Amino acid sequence: MTPNAPAVLMFADTTHTAAMRNEVPHSVHDPFLYIEKGDERFTVLRSLEVARMSEVPRMHALPLEEFGLDELVASGLSPDQATLEIALRACRRLQIEQAVVPPAFPVELADHLRAGGIELTVDGTLFETRRRAKSSAQLDGIRRAQTAAEAAVASVAQALHDAEVGADGGLVLDGAPLTCERLKEGVALAFIRNGCGGDDVIVAHGYQTCVGHHSGSGQVMEGEPVTVDLCPRDPESGCYTDITRTFVKGPVNDELALYHRIVKESIDAVHAAIRPGLPVRELHRISCEPIAAAGQPTRLTKKPGEVLNEGFFHSLGHGVGLEIHEAPHLDQNDDVLVPGDVIAVEPGCYRQGFGGVRLEDLVLVTESGSELLTDYPYTLAPEPIRRGVAR
Amino acid sequence: MTPNAPAVLMFADTTHTAAMRNEVPHSVHDPFLYIEKGDERFTVLRSLEVARMSEVPRMHALPLEEFGLDELVASGLSPDQATLEIALRACRRLQIEQAVVPPAFPVELADHLRAGGIELTVDGTLFETRRRAKSSAQLDGIRRAQTAAEAAVASVAQALHDAEVGADGGLVLDGAPLTCERLKEGVALAFIRNGCGGDDVIVAHGYQTCVGHHSGSGQVMEGEPVTVDLCPRDPESGCYTDITRTFVKGPVNDELALYHRIVKESIDAVHAAIRPGLPVRELHRISCEPIAAAGQPTRLTKKPGEVLNEGFFHSLGHGVGLEIHEAPHLDQNDDVLVPGDVIAVEPGCYRQGFGGVRLEDLVLVTESGSELLTDYPYTLAPEPIRRGVAR
Repeated sequence: MTPNAPAVLMFADTTHTAAMRNEVPHSVHDPFLYIEKGDERFTVLRSLEVARMSEVPRMHALPLEEFGLDELVASGLSPDQATLEIALRACRRLQIEQAVVPPAFPVELADHLRAGGIELTVDGTLFETRRRAKSSAQLDGIRRAQTAAEAAVASVAQALHDAEVGADGGLVLDGAPLTCERLKEGVALAFIRNGCGGDDVIVAHGYQTCVGHHSGSGQVMEGEPVTVDLCPRDPESGCYTDITRTFVKGPVNDELALYHRIVKESIDAVHAAIRPGLPVRELHRISCEPIAAAGQPTRLTKKPGEVLNEGFFHSLGHGVGLEIHEAPHLDQNDDVLVPGDVIAVEPGCYRQGFGGVRLEDLVLVTESGSELLTDYPYTLAPEPIRRGVAR
Repeated sequence: MTPNAPAVLMFADTTHTAAMRNEVPHSVHDPFLYIEKGDERFTVLRSLEVARMSEVPRMHALPLEEFGLDELVASGLSPDQATLEIALRACRRLQIEQAVVPPAFPVELADHLRAGGIELTVDGTLFETRRRAKSSAQLDGIRRAQTAAEAAVASVAQALHDAEVGADGGLVLDGAPLTCERLKEGVALAFIRNGCGGDDVIVAHGYQTCVGHHSGSGQVMEGEPVTVDLCPRDPESGCYTDITRTFVKGPVNDELALYHRIVKESIDAVHAAIRPGLPVRELHRISCEPIAAAGQPTRLTKKPGEVLNEGFFHSLGHGVGLEIHEAPHLDQNDDVLVPGDVIAVEPGCYRQGFGGVRLEDLVLVTESGSELLTDYPYTLAPEPIRRGVAR
């Protein structure tokens, strides 16, 4: 990098803004200034954060006080106004004349820096690209989250396996109705026992499994689908995972058996295809083929303007990392897989009012192909299986 | 409002940006445009969100397609670039020439709108003020979160109450060591049974109770402090609460008894003082007095530049709503309480290497005074108490 190459600037906290969390692997709740100049990195922030920040490799942590915080506040500026002026002073001290910023860089600070003579250019691709190649610390975190996710799916499978079928077809466990709410308690315990958290928990049954974002409620019945879709977060890395399995307690009817067969064919074909350089449009097409071949609707065959809500009606999946949904989006767009991508692939097939089957795995795109990060059987029958720390 | 008064613009999602969540009471994961003009409100967003958005009072939901999305993408623009142009087209159709935006409005969109002739002015106070007066729906959500929080504290108290003291002074429950990890499992269950989530759980013991943000680990011992600090979130409203209680199983030594007495005097004095119009600097002073009178360090008596880490070393508290920490910040600043503020007051007293006592309540500032939203005893002895849905 030449000495006159534009610097990189961000101003955000690390709890709401993934681009900042990607550079600063700590939870910092208050927004702060981040500067890259050549190979050097600087943060300007409250003095109580300096010690922790100094432990980040190649990071110079500069306290606000060094840039006249006390004097600015004593002169009558609010802390927010003082922060604007300190950011300008820090840019000047580091001799920054041009900088690249993310699209969501705050306009108030941008106005102040520009008025002070700093030239700012927005570059969304730069920050998106950085987040696609996961660091080893992030991959470790994703693997920890994955362990928690599989332990939680296993807790649901175990409960369904252990349940008995009541006279009305409703499942009963330990003398009480087995509900989605009870199954979610097992999920919450599996998350916490495996060091993770996560609020967006789907344990849905019957027709609910076909309703986008229905989190599920009520007693599970024999022979109906139970969809478990979980995305726990590893607190140390800030990274998520994403898994879905579908179970049926008792006899499986022909429609569910068909859906399961073609969705499994879809995910198998997807796994075989994933490699760096593959256009996501092609991966999406591959995922639709077995489902379309069985006569089910997919986005491949839908007419322009038609709103699909049955068959394989949603996209194939999405990147997973510091956000549950991030690039690349596995749909009919022009993106291409790159090494370091971590993607969730989640084909499904559904009928409104009836329900459906969805299977979701996490896959790392490697230099030569892919590595499956999920280790959990696809079977509809809920079998006892040991994963992570369980009861 | 006059027809020519500046409009209000935001561009954000509702899951990361509280200012947007405050106007749009739904989880919308993708950023979208929000426009206020006079008494009318508009959102411009993906067609699949339109139906849900149309249910928001006084809200006109306009799909991106109405502003030429398909044509823009067909012309070669990326979806992000198309969104910028659609925002400009929407402003023009609504005849917006001037608009007020929050400080964190994205610079890329600001540049595009300004290049298109829209004049943008940043006004941080406007958006902060709006969030301080909680809506009745938000207050209902805070009360639900509070029920979950109290049920979770009660689960910790119950476990400490039921535990026996082993030969080495360590607590034992159901034949196994009673650890912070086990107590946190009870917290997670209480949250989920009361319809809430929350990952930032502190159940710390002994010296850990004096370390800022130590989340706690290991077996609890007889006679040492156990601090439970919880901030569950109600998913429907998106609002948090915040509660802290400190328990001691078995005999209480003189130092902890002193800390508990003066911290309780502090929180009692704070409750008696809270009313609209009160400067937060004065409330902070009132909270320090009983603690300083006992000879303990507080921010009142600290020398400039000194870093306090014992006594009552932190601020008195903070606003609580769509963020766990928001305005007003209860410290030595010039803010004043207003009706509708929901504040967490959390005096404490600590000694490094030993631990401490902290008590935290949630209080609503009313037109005439205040309403205590927390209903949980302050006693150090962990007593069984019934709150919310428990085991």
